[in-house]
Amino acid sequence: MKRPLILVTNDDGIKAGGLRYLISQVRELGDVLVVASRHSNSGQGHSITVRTPLRCDLVHEEEGYREYVSNGTPVDCVKLGEQIVLKGEKPDIIVSGVNHGSNASVNIVYSGTMAAVIEGCIGGVPSIGFSLNTYAEDANFEACGSFIKEISSKVLEEGLPAGVCLNVNFPVVPKEKIKGVKVCRQANARWVEQYEERTDPRQRDYYWLTGYFEKLEENEKTDQWAIENDYIAVVPIHYDMTAHQSIEKIKSWNLNGYGL
Amino acid sequence: MKRPLILVTNDDGIKAGGLRYLISQVRELGDVLVVASRHSNSGQGHSITVRTPLRCDLVHEEEGYREYVSNGTPVDCVKLGEQIVLKGEKPDIIVSGVNHGSNASVNIVYSGTMAAVIEGCIGGVPSIGFSLNTYAEDANFEACGSFIKEISSKVLEEGLPAGVCLNVNFPVVPKEKIKGVKVCRQANARWVEQYEERTDPRQRDYYWLTGYFEKLEENEKTDQWAIENDYIAVVPIHYDMTAHQSIEKIKSWNLNGYGL
Repeated sequence: MKRPLILVTNDDGIKAGGLRYLISQVRELGDVLVVASRHSNSGQGHSITVRTPLRCDLVHEEEGYREYVSNGTPVDCVKLGEQIVLKGEKPDIIVSGVNHGSNASVNIVYSGTMAAVIEGCIGGVPSIGFSLNTYAEDANFEACGSFIKEISSKVLEEGLPAGVCLNVNFPVVPKEKIKGVKVCRQANARWVEQYEERTDPRQRDYYWLTGYFEKLEENEKTDQWAIENDYIAVVPIHYDMTAHQSIEKIKSWNLNGYGL
Repeated sequence: MKRPLILVTNDDGIKAGGLRYLISQVRELGDVLVVASRHSNSGQGHSITVRTPLRCDLVHEEEGYREYVSNGTPVDCVKLGEQIVLKGEKPDIIVSGVNHGSNASVNIVYSGTMAAVIEGCIGGVPSIGFSLNTYAEDANFEACGSFIKEISSKVLEEGLPAGVCLNVNFPVVPKEKIKGVKVCRQANARWVEQYEERTDPRQRDYYWLTGYFEKLEENEKTDQWAIENDYIAVVPIHYDMTAHQSIEKIKSWNLNGYGL
């Protein structure tokens, strides 16, 4: 039986520990193609490169394994993997991560790791993002391994509904402390900015983005609650951003003809 | 009565004709604060600047009007406008655009213009993105004016439901050809990549992103149909990306305990 083809990417860059760990796990499931950015693209959202040329260079190849490095974003890496490396063939699955830092709740909006997953999903490939709830560069991903393999196997076996991908977030606890997997919804929260203001040697002001995460709800049905309570959070995600429940409300404004 | 405070941004950069036109229109409605990127950030999605310092420099000021230029992305511009210029005060409304190019359908995922709108919405400010269905740099925005003012006025008056913003797309026809405003949903479509492959003077390959837009449905209830049929498309958007309809399906996999 033909081994599945697994495209792996991330947003922390090709050297990140989370990517190396994810590769080591999914290599047990099939042939692996890695296309990842040379540098970190954390916080780059669904950015694509349109004004500069892209590179996609083979850096390692062995039986059942190829690794390419790109100057592009995570979304570029998915596109390059499919169009340049695979010549338009689709992988059987795309996995992205393991992200150094949570992509639960509103973090998904800013995440390059999840943007790669959504890009895979737009292209019709079952796609999963994995993230660990710590920004530590030397984070230990050991507790994630069996879950990564089992969730990926399940998706390889069952597929995913059309237009749906998965956002999987891990709590930072040893495996024996993990209480289980919770399928949940995205929590309502936001980042509150607190720019650090500095002055450069030429006396011009500049700013560094900082801030804190503000939870706007506490609810057991959310991903944020799950990872804070030692569960693995699995959220099905789609890219239809329509607020369907508000269509009638806006229609009631009778904008049609208004101002014509 | 105090005039409303309107924050204006875009992703085509501070010199773009669409931004200048939007400013000219909303100045009739209130005091205007512009914070926009020096250069184009088209296709930058919900990118934020975390690894380099940000600038936010006043370039023009007169009664009821201030204009700042930044090296950041559209999302950075919203954050800088609120935190640095307004010192944490919120504007009454955020408008973004007028984008040179459609942000209907899946384009919203890649759009810096709509990312700024979503960022405003996350922060609790009623926010609207305006886009015209042509990439032409010298596009004529005259047909959009009365609609921009009336939709913005309506939102200033009524507010928007919590967590909801608007994605407004204009067809490229003279005002008298516009058939009306349709409140609709995001169409299902995707971009199909076709990289242009070239070789540099050092004999290394590089790639330029190109591609075409592939519609995956034809439906009168969608934004794509609306702008192709001379209607203005208004789609209420939210940033809860949960595919709620798939939660039970994924739960039925019984991942809980699987692999423990």
